[in-house]
Amino acid sequence: MVERFSASLKAELLAEFDRFISRHGYENRSEAIRDLIRTALVADEWQAGKAEVVGVVTLVYDHHRPNLLNRITRIQHESPASVITTTHVHLDHHNCLEIIIARGKPAQVRALADSLTSLKGVKNGSLSAATTGRRLS
Amino acid sequence: MVERFSASLKAELLAEFDRFISRHGYENRSEAIRDLIRTALVADEWQAGKAEVVGVVTLVYDHHRPNLLNRITRIQHESPASVITTTHVHLDHHNCLEIIIARGKPAQVRALADSLTSLKGVKNGSLSAATTGRRLS
Amino acid sequence: MVERFSASLKAELLAEFDRFISRHGYENRSEAIRDLIRTALVADEWQAGKAEVVGVVTLVYDHHRPNLLNRITRIQHESPASVITTTHVHLDHHNCLEIIIARGKPAQVRALADSLTSLKGVKNGSLSAATTGRRLS
Amino acid sequence: MVERFSASLKAELLAEFDRFISRHGYENRSEAIRDLIRTALVADEWQAGKAEVVGVVTLVYDHHRPNLLNRITRIQHESPASVITTTHVHLDHHNCLEIIIARGKPAQVRALADSLTSLKGVKNGSLSAATTGRRLS
Repeated sequence: MVERFSASLKAELLAEFDRFISRHGYENRSEAIRDLIRTALVADEWQAGKAEVVGVVTLVYDHHRPNLLNRITRIQHESPASVITTTHVHLDHHNCLEIIIARGKPAQVRALADSLTSLKGVKNGSLSAATTGRRLS
Repeated sequence: MVERFSASLKAELLAEFDRFISRHGYENRSEAIRDLIRTALVADEWQAGKAEVVGVVTLVYDHHRPNLLNRITRIQHESPASVITTTHVHLDHHNCLEIIIARGKPAQVRALADSLTSLKGVKNGSLSAATTGRRLS
Repeated sequence: MVERFSASLKAELLAEFDRFISRHGYENRSEAIRDLIRTALVADEWQAGKAEVVGVVTLVYDHHRPNLLNRITRIQHESPASVITTTHVHLDHHNCLEIIIARGKPAQVRALADSLTSLKGVKNGSLSAATTGRRLS
Repeated sequence: MVERFSASLKAELLAEFDRFISRHGYENRSEAIRDLIRTALVADEWQAGKAEVVGVVTLVYDHHRPNLLNRITRIQHESPASVITTTHVHLDHHNCLEIIIARGKPAQVRALADSLTSLKGVKNGSLSAATTGRRLS
């Protein structure tokens, strides 16, 4: 069920918002408003720490490093966060990029990201905060 | 001049948004929507780099360090960004916190923050991205 | 070729750093230092905007939305950033998560992320800043 | 007491780090390393939530808005975080910038920032995460 709600803004702020909408390629104001709201809700989910979230861990590493692949795999199996899938990309002869998609409580997903990022041979690691989408209609 | 515009949302998203509003203490939906819009506009101002912005540099340092105060002052005078004011707080016997409010192009304000943060004796430095408020009615 | 360099720290700061190392699971100080350096270098790459970077775009969307899949695909083909691979995960009956790994200049990768995130039906989108790993040995 | 510790890096990474040092104006490697460590420690303090921190709240608002100044003041008095000082700047005829420096647990400082940012008439608000400096020698 779709509801409409209205907000009041000064005309100048609305004009700035319309420029924002065109800069970022939104179709219309409703879509832009929904996006701002959902982004704020996802930030709150991660901050509150109670609901299940989805995290995307990105690792760049040198796959010639001995045992690194085994350790990356073992950490995923031992994590209380549930790893949904991993994707592996060969960037060049030395560098691999690996994406690990995991779901769990924020603290579990952060701990998984920490364990992977701190491995010797992992050059760069980061965690992107996503969502199960359940509370975002 | 105040205008009203309306946005359509699924009922569940609107309910989540209403919980967000009460969690963060907003008076009503209009105020929350305006805040989300203005936060996005300020981020764009800093990203685009063309318009004048206001930056707040926070430094924590040990004021016993010789010459540090002179160097902090000289950097402010030499910066192409315009320093509006500084505030100084004695945190304890050793630690001072200093806030430097500056306006200028984002690159100028970032360079000022970099020069101050990298000084020997400055323990912690950060830059908070604010705005002149002119395009935010 | 591996080089050693030494840094001087107050004993208390070194003790705090050792606690940081154990909290985050680093094997030793060298590995933690290398990670802090590489994270700072990747942030600079994205800020400077000149060198090629790798970006990971995460989208959560409702795959029942008509035409959305076609539009997501078309935007990837039309982007000046080069899409290396995409990974698709079914979160539940409605929600899909899609990871798009792209390389290009930071502005190109950001524009690709913007175009995808702003699509109607995409509930949540974010961009994680990664690296080609070339300047990170 | 100052200690020296040494870290091993590949020569290319050390060369990149030296370019980082000159870009950001650090005097030497030790100072840059200390800064990277201290920045990581402050992030951990805020994430852990247990130790006392210092937060800098920046507000931009229209001082013509009736009652806004009273409400900003009352919120500060009622907060469990301890407000150390506030600084007020007149940006132009309409816009004021106010800096509120507060110390307390991270959750207390975040709640204070939220209460102020969500006020009607406050155009832009943000929280910058600083430190008491005690654990950062």
